[in-house]
Amino acid sequence: MIASSETISAEPLFPNSTRIYCDGNIHKDITVPMREVSLSSSEKPNGLVEENKPIRVYDTSGPWGDPNFKGDVTEGLPPLRREWILERGDIEEYSGRETKPEDNGYISEEHSKRYNDGKKPKNKLSEYPGLKRNPMKSGGKLPLTQLQYARAGVITKEMEYIAIRENLGREKAYAAIQNADKDPRNVLNFSHKGQSFGAETPTFITPEFVRDEVAKGRAIIPLNINHPECEPMIIGRNFLVKINANIGNSAVTSSIEEEVEKLRWATKWGADTVMDLSTGKNIHATREWIIRNSPVPIGTVPIYQALEKVNGRVEDLCWEVFRDTLIEQAEQGVDYFTIHAGVLLRYVPMTATRMTGIVSRGGSIMAKWCLSHHKENFLYTHWDDICDIMAAYDVSFSIGDGLRPGSISDANDSAQFSELKTQGELTERAWDKGVQVMNEGPGHVPMHMIQENMEKQLEWCHEAPFYTLGPLTTDIAPAYDHITSGIGAAMIGWYGCAMLCYVTPKEHLGLPNKEDVREGVITYKIAAHAADLAKGHPAAQERDNAISKARFEFRWEDQFNLSLDPDRAKEYHDETLPQDGAKTAHFCSMCGPTFCSMKISEEVRQYAEENGMQTEEAIASGMKEKAEQFKESGSEIYN
Amino acid sequence: MIASSETISAEPLFPNSTRIYCDGNIHKDITVPMREVSLSSSEKPNGLVEENKPIRVYDTSGPWGDPNFKGDVTEGLPPLRREWILERGDIEEYSGRETKPEDNGYISEEHSKRYNDGKKPKNKLSEYPGLKRNPMKSGGKLPLTQLQYARAGVITKEMEYIAIRENLGREKAYAAIQNADKDPRNVLNFSHKGQSFGAETPTFITPEFVRDEVAKGRAIIPLNINHPECEPMIIGRNFLVKINANIGNSAVTSSIEEEVEKLRWATKWGADTVMDLSTGKNIHATREWIIRNSPVPIGTVPIYQALEKVNGRVEDLCWEVFRDTLIEQAEQGVDYFTIHAGVLLRYVPMTATRMTGIVSRGGSIMAKWCLSHHKENFLYTHWDDICDIMAAYDVSFSIGDGLRPGSISDANDSAQFSELKTQGELTERAWDKGVQVMNEGPGHVPMHMIQENMEKQLEWCHEAPFYTLGPLTTDIAPAYDHITSGIGAAMIGWYGCAMLCYVTPKEHLGLPNKEDVREGVITYKIAAHAADLAKGHPAAQERDNAISKARFEFRWEDQFNLSLDPDRAKEYHDETLPQDGAKTAHFCSMCGPTFCSMKISEEVRQYAEENGMQTEEAIASGMKEKAEQFKESGSEIYN
Repeated sequence: MIASSETISAEPLFPNSTRIYCDGNIHKDITVPMREVSLSSSEKPNGLVEENKPIRVYDTSGPWGDPNFKGDVTEGLPPLRREWILERGDIEEYSGRETKPEDNGYISEEHSKRYNDGKKPKNKLSEYPGLKRNPMKSGGKLPLTQLQYARAGVITKEMEYIAIRENLGREKAYAAIQNADKDPRNVLNFSHKGQSFGAETPTFITPEFVRDEVAKGRAIIPLNINHPECEPMIIGRNFLVKINANIGNSAVTSSIEEEVEKLRWATKWGADTVMDLSTGKNIHATREWIIRNSPVPIGTVPIYQALEKVNGRVEDLCWEVFRDTLIEQAEQGVDYFTIHAGVLLRYVPMTATRMTGIVSRGGSIMAKWCLSHHKENFLYTHWDDICDIMAAYDVSFSIGDGLRPGSISDANDSAQFSELKTQGELTERAWDKGVQVMNEGPGHVPMHMIQENMEKQLEWCHEAPFYTLGPLTTDIAPAYDHITSGIGAAMIGWYGCAMLCYVTPKEHLGLPNKEDVREGVITYKIAAHAADLAKGHPAAQERDNAISKARFEFRWEDQFNLSLDPDRAKEYHDETLPQDGAKTAHFCSMCGPTFCSMKISEEVRQYAEENGMQTEEAIASGMKEKAEQFKESGSEIYN
Repeated sequence: MIASSETISAEPLFPNSTRIYCDGNIHKDITVPMREVSLSSSEKPNGLVEENKPIRVYDTSGPWGDPNFKGDVTEGLPPLRREWILERGDIEEYSGRETKPEDNGYISEEHSKRYNDGKKPKNKLSEYPGLKRNPMKSGGKLPLTQLQYARAGVITKEMEYIAIRENLGREKAYAAIQNADKDPRNVLNFSHKGQSFGAETPTFITPEFVRDEVAKGRAIIPLNINHPECEPMIIGRNFLVKINANIGNSAVTSSIEEEVEKLRWATKWGADTVMDLSTGKNIHATREWIIRNSPVPIGTVPIYQALEKVNGRVEDLCWEVFRDTLIEQAEQGVDYFTIHAGVLLRYVPMTATRMTGIVSRGGSIMAKWCLSHHKENFLYTHWDDICDIMAAYDVSFSIGDGLRPGSISDANDSAQFSELKTQGELTERAWDKGVQVMNEGPGHVPMHMIQENMEKQLEWCHEAPFYTLGPLTTDIAPAYDHITSGIGAAMIGWYGCAMLCYVTPKEHLGLPNKEDVREGVITYKIAAHAADLAKGHPAAQERDNAISKARFEFRWEDQFNLSLDPDRAKEYHDETLPQDGAKTAHFCSMCGPTFCSMKISEEVRQYAEENGMQTEEAIASGMKEKAEQFKESGSEIYN
């Protein structure tokens, strides 16, 4: 846990890694962070030494991953994008909404004092001496959202930043961006059905391609102008598959420091966005410190806080309370809102015969509200008003799937698909207002029904990015639902899903602790990367190739360092062979020192190289005498 | 660890579970064990109580899972099938091969004594006072293998046992077997491409269907007549997907007791077969105690032991040593042999340009042998001799994939596919000799290349069962390769793979310990079950439905008890809410006591039921006054 006044640099860095920065070309003042893993040289059996180029990896840890950065969680991260936003010229600063006691779950100031009296940590915003900026919003004359800029043909700084970032810092691709941008032959465009490209795969992503995908609504750049600390990233199926980690306090446990630490922890391991799903007390204060310290976009479900403001009485929810909450959160800098506007009154009864009814919290809130009042969902009826607020801050929509299936039995049913169609209608209406949109998806879905989800979403929601929870491919493994869902997540990522919401081993059972977050994030990095490989992302396989080469050459440290979790890889290796010598040994504990298939493979390779045995013909043309040589000299090279 | 003289019953049983037995119909003397999980009743909001039927699950733990069984690992399990085998009448008992010092890795008796002097445990077979039966083999006149019986139209006891077992003890299906067997409308037959059936799915598996699938070579029953302790099971794509767990000592670590304990542990969690991959000292003795205590088929890779017998010098391997090893292991009761006869001399150079060469241990041994002698693989040239030996004991083939890819880069290359074609040729030749066959497959394969593996195997190997290792869908996550491979395993299982060889978190890094075995087995049970759901196995979804119903109704204990790992599910729940009251509470730690989406769903359901709201029309026809009622009375039912 981080003491609130402590000045800290970063989580311990990954081994053999350096933070590097790549400069922009169109925009000279941008600089994109990456992590570069240095590798040792290969010692070839013939005595030659071969250098191995360092591998650059996508880095979500932000300034916390820069060893030169000395940060203070009570002051927040530097406002990277503040100048970019201001210079575009359509911003007005204003004093903003006053924080009210009910924002944090208290009836009055007096209640807040009584509640926190004698408690540690007190968790009141007023006790943190950090920055309090005035919020900004659109002046209303010029475009403001990334979608509006994209449509206007403007490549924003955010877009070039993303192009550089998505190329994973590959030097060739980066050099190419500097030179040729609009040549269509260079432009990446994955197919819609998830096939891979093969030899014709374009080699990099250009800033113009980023702009074009955003303009078409096929990708979003979720960046609230009031979250200038955030590093630009993109969510769309023609880019790297992204993952989201949920954090959030709860009525039962948690504190603000824990939540900020979870944020730093999740982004260290690779979370591309983080959703703050806090309920209960101190929601506003918790969110403030999460946003101020977050280098990744923050998403929320505003109805959760709105419900707290009416003391948990769903019937008392109304547009005014919700609107107040939207503005409160937009001013703080939330980058995307999950809004369950697709849960229409007429869909609710469709869930009555389900195995598990409505499992989405937001969905069940709105269903109950609809039934109580026998009125149409007020989020649906106020959709245009909501769009106007979100456009003013460039908050992106994550249109909720309140009727997602909560069991295999309920997958792809009429309730789920009815809502999905309405999500499509809402998507178009949001686009008309210039707001960026992605759509949320399930849930629990058996493997053979996953592709249908993806295809219907693309069709009905007009190719807006899809953002799914898993899906879980079976219900029978609580405590392992990171795995049941990781299977479905990898598959739907391959089929075209743009972002995967992680599931931890505690799903269905309890709240994740730090180790659960790590397990969930790594599992979803695996799913996302497996999908990137399968859909043919041109940069994805470099890391696989590098780690496999290291493995084959017994460069153990390189194998650990290139892995998604170097600490655990090393720890597992050391359980059997803890000696330092084993890290350079040409054997491992699986076969022991006297026999190793990798060793024999190297002998085969050498033999083939020495004898030019590349084809069947070469063998057929008689090499028996060479075999004798091999037997006499080469076959025991490592003994 | 089990002390060698200790009398033990079973691993602690799963909570709320009973061991039941279902009797045969064609064969009155067979009785098939299953585990039955009892469930508590549902308390409906209207006060009514609804009984929940117990759920039967497939049980691989054998007598160790029967609380009435008192066993002694030094005496082994009861010989369940001995009478079945003897009564078929074509068996001859004989004195068998004498165990030699080199079987256990010693040069002489003297060496064995010196080596073990003062060591604990000594691990010499002679120090265990257990059973030593004479081996049996075919008399040569009547059919002996299950394949031969199947072709002759005989439904063996093993086949009926399997039919009952595969139906997961569903009462309806079981009753149906008793009555109607050969009605084709009742016969299950999955499609070959992995699609599901929907409403037309047949409801159960009949003994005749089992026979027919075995006769066609589409399924195997791996049961050596010298392993009578084994409970019959089947491997084929029209049955439940099976999983294998590897155990085995190694030159670096391990003891016999540890290996037997690993076997009992792996089968407790659900391993359908176990491969003993021991190398180094005491191979013969280790295997003896594993087989005598195993209720599941045991597989081995005989070339490993053959290599030990020639002191690790690959060049010194020859047919005579291998033949001797086959007979040694067949007499002990090994149920299936992995034999790398498809690694032909002309394929070896195809691996020279690979990223990771040859990663199969057996494959690299044979590749090195081929190159050293510049001769064709002696396993290939002696294939007919090998078939004759295996037919005499009903040992099944698992034709090895010695050239499987060890990295994403090498997937589906010419070396791999060349060997697969040869596997197909060897399959047909083995069938001609009456030997049962399955084929091994990769390895490391990205998601978009998995289906091609399955389709080519079905085509080239004439629909013999496929048995794959994973495949791993990315190389970059050592320490999480149970997950990288669980993704690929679930997918290929759906596409038609019959058995999945597990991968533990220690893959590539070290030897699995007990917790790794548990993690690997559960991950693969998830993959197999997800595949069963996706391919439409008629019995698979019952357990999902039961656990989802329990989840929806807050029957926490039932949710734990129905899960693949009840202990861990309960442990994770208790981390947040350890109180006993929380197990019956109508809330969980995710949302806390004042709000819960499940609770609201129940309210929606009640409301819909009370008001007949099943259709859009019902709503449209004006229910506003009912909404008022709900608001006044029903909406706070649980508060």
